[in-house]
Amino acid sequence: MGFAQKLCTAIQKKQSAVCVGLDPQWAKLPLFLTQKFKKEYPSGREAAARAYLEFNKGIIDATSDLVVAVKPQMAYYEELGSLGWWAFEETCAYAAQKGLLVIADGKRNDIGSTAETYARAFFGGEMAGEQFETSVDALTVNGYLGLDGIQPFLKACGEKDKGLFVLVKTSNPSSGDLQDRVTVDEKISIAELMGHFVESWGSDLVDESGYSSVGAVVGATFPQEAKKLRAIMPNSFFLVPGYGAQGGAAEDVKPCFNSDGLGALVVNARGILYAFAEGQPSLGENYAEAARQVTSQMKEALNQVR
Amino acid sequence: MGFAQKLCTAIQKKQSAVCVGLDPQWAKLPLFLTQKFKKEYPSGREAAARAYLEFNKGIIDATSDLVVAVKPQMAYYEELGSLGWWAFEETCAYAAQKGLLVIADGKRNDIGSTAETYARAFFGGEMAGEQFETSVDALTVNGYLGLDGIQPFLKACGEKDKGLFVLVKTSNPSSGDLQDRVTVDEKISIAELMGHFVESWGSDLVDESGYSSVGAVVGATFPQEAKKLRAIMPNSFFLVPGYGAQGGAAEDVKPCFNSDGLGALVVNARGILYAFAEGQPSLGENYAEAARQVTSQMKEALNQVR
Repeated sequence: MGFAQKLCTAIQKKQSAVCVGLDPQWAKLPLFLTQKFKKEYPSGREAAARAYLEFNKGIIDATSDLVVAVKPQMAYYEELGSLGWWAFEETCAYAAQKGLLVIADGKRNDIGSTAETYARAFFGGEMAGEQFETSVDALTVNGYLGLDGIQPFLKACGEKDKGLFVLVKTSNPSSGDLQDRVTVDEKISIAELMGHFVESWGSDLVDESGYSSVGAVVGATFPQEAKKLRAIMPNSFFLVPGYGAQGGAAEDVKPCFNSDGLGALVVNARGILYAFAEGQPSLGENYAEAARQVTSQMKEALNQVR
Repeated sequence: MGFAQKLCTAIQKKQSAVCVGLDPQWAKLPLFLTQKFKKEYPSGREAAARAYLEFNKGIIDATSDLVVAVKPQMAYYEELGSLGWWAFEETCAYAAQKGLLVIADGKRNDIGSTAETYARAFFGGEMAGEQFETSVDALTVNGYLGLDGIQPFLKACGEKDKGLFVLVKTSNPSSGDLQDRVTVDEKISIAELMGHFVESWGSDLVDESGYSSVGAVVGATFPQEAKKLRAIMPNSFFLVPGYGAQGGAAEDVKPCFNSDGLGALVVNARGILYAFAEGQPSLGENYAEAARQVTSQMKEALNQVR
C-alpha cells in the first residue's frame, strides 16, 4: 500500500489529522523522569537518551489512538550523539509497533549519490551483504539542490512504499527571506515554484487514494500562502508545523485541507509534550494524561474545520 | 582564534588548499579491509562502522601533512545508524588529534529553536548538567529557511570559534532548478541572492585574517557562476565540492580563489579515497599510498592556479 493510502486510511479510521512531534528536550522533561535517569546514569548524554526514550514511549502510549503519526525531529536526538541515534531508532520502532506512521524530520538534502545513501539510511537497504530495515515511513527533505537530489528518494518511495515531505513554505518568521522572492519568468514566489516541483516530482507516485507519496511542508503560520499552495498541489499531502507553540490555530490550517477533509497532517510538538507544565508546578508524573487531553482537543478542533 | 584565521594559517603553513572528503562506501573499500571486518563482526552495519573508521584513519595518516581539513559526509555514517555516529565521532576526534580541521557535511536546516539544537549537536553544549564537546570545527548548512534558521549557528561561530558553510551554488547537474532562477526585484539568481545573504550573515564574524567564519558552498562544476559569486562574497571562504569524480579540474576552481591565493578550500572525496582501484585489480593494501599520491598531485595542481 502506498504511503498516501496508508495515511488516508489512518486518518479516516482514527478520525484524526494530528501528528505528534517528538522533540524531547532535557530541560523541559518532567522532573520525576530527569531525576530518575540522572541518578541511574552518571553520563549526561546517556541519561538523556534513556529519559527521551521513556518519555516518548509514554507520549506514544497516551496518544496512539488519537493520532496517525509521530514526527521525531532529528536535531534533538543528534544532540546526544550515537546514543541519541539509538533513542531515535528505538522510538521509531516503538511507534511503528503501536500502529503509528513515523515521519523522520531530518530535512536532508544533497547531490544524487549522497541522497541515495540518505534514502538507505532512513528507509533501509543493504550493508556488508546484510539487509537492514528501519521503522521510518517518511522523511522531510529540502529541495534547494533540485531534482537530482530528490530522485533517489522518489525511487525509494515507489519501491518501498515510503513517503517524502519537501520543504515548501516553512513556519518560521524569516521563511520569506528566500521563499517569498518572486521569479522573473513565472512571476510566482520561490515557495510556489517549489510547490510546482513537488506536484511534478510526485506525479508518478499517486496511489489509489488519489494522493501522491510526495508531500509538502507548509507552515500553519501563513494561511494565505497555504491557500495558494493547496491549489498548486491538489494531489500532495501537507505536513503542517507551527500549530500551537508557534502560533497557528485550527482556523489557520483550514486552507491546508482539501474539500475531502484530507490532504493535511497537522503537527504539534511542544504543545502536547509539555502540556503538563502549563498547570501548577509539579514533578510532571501526569505528563501523559496532560498530553492526551491536549491531543484530544486538537483532534476535535481540526475535525471542526476540515 | 576565529575559524577563518585557523583556515588561513593552515593553508599557508601547509601550502595546500585541499580538503579530503571522508565518504566511506562499503562496496568501494579495499577488499582486505572489508574481508577482515566482515569476518570479525557478523553484523553488517557493525562490520562497516569498524571498517570505515580504520579506513578513515589510514587516509588521515597518509594525507594529514598535505591537506588542511577533512569533510566527513554525514549520509555515509547515518546509513549505519547509531554505530555510524560512533564512527563519525571517532573519525572527527582522530582527525582533530592529527591537527586537521573538521568540516561536518550535514547540510542541516531548521527553524530557530531546532537550529539551536543542531548547533549544540555539532559544536558542543550542555546536556543533563554536563558539558560535552565535539571535534567538529565547521558545519555545512542550507539557507532555505532564511536568517532565523541560521542565527543560532552564527552565535556558536562567534562564541566557540566555529565555522559555517552555507549552500549557495551546488555542484550537481540539477542545481539550476532552483538556484539559477532570477528574482524579479534584484534581477539576480537565487544562488547570487544566497551569496548576498552569506556576505551579510558573516559581516560581524570577520576575524584578523580578513575572512569571515561564514563561508559558502560553491561547486567546482560551474566556473562562470563561481566568478560572480567570488565578487559578491569577497570576505567568505568557498568550500568547493565537485573536483575530480564530479568533473571539476584545477582550472575550473581558479575563480573560487581571491587574488591573495586564499578564500577557497577544494574538496576531493572519491578521487582520493578510491585512487587504489584505478590500477590493477588488488586487495587494496596500497590504498593509503595511492590516496597520498593523488592528494599530492591535487595540492600541486591547485597551487599552480591560486
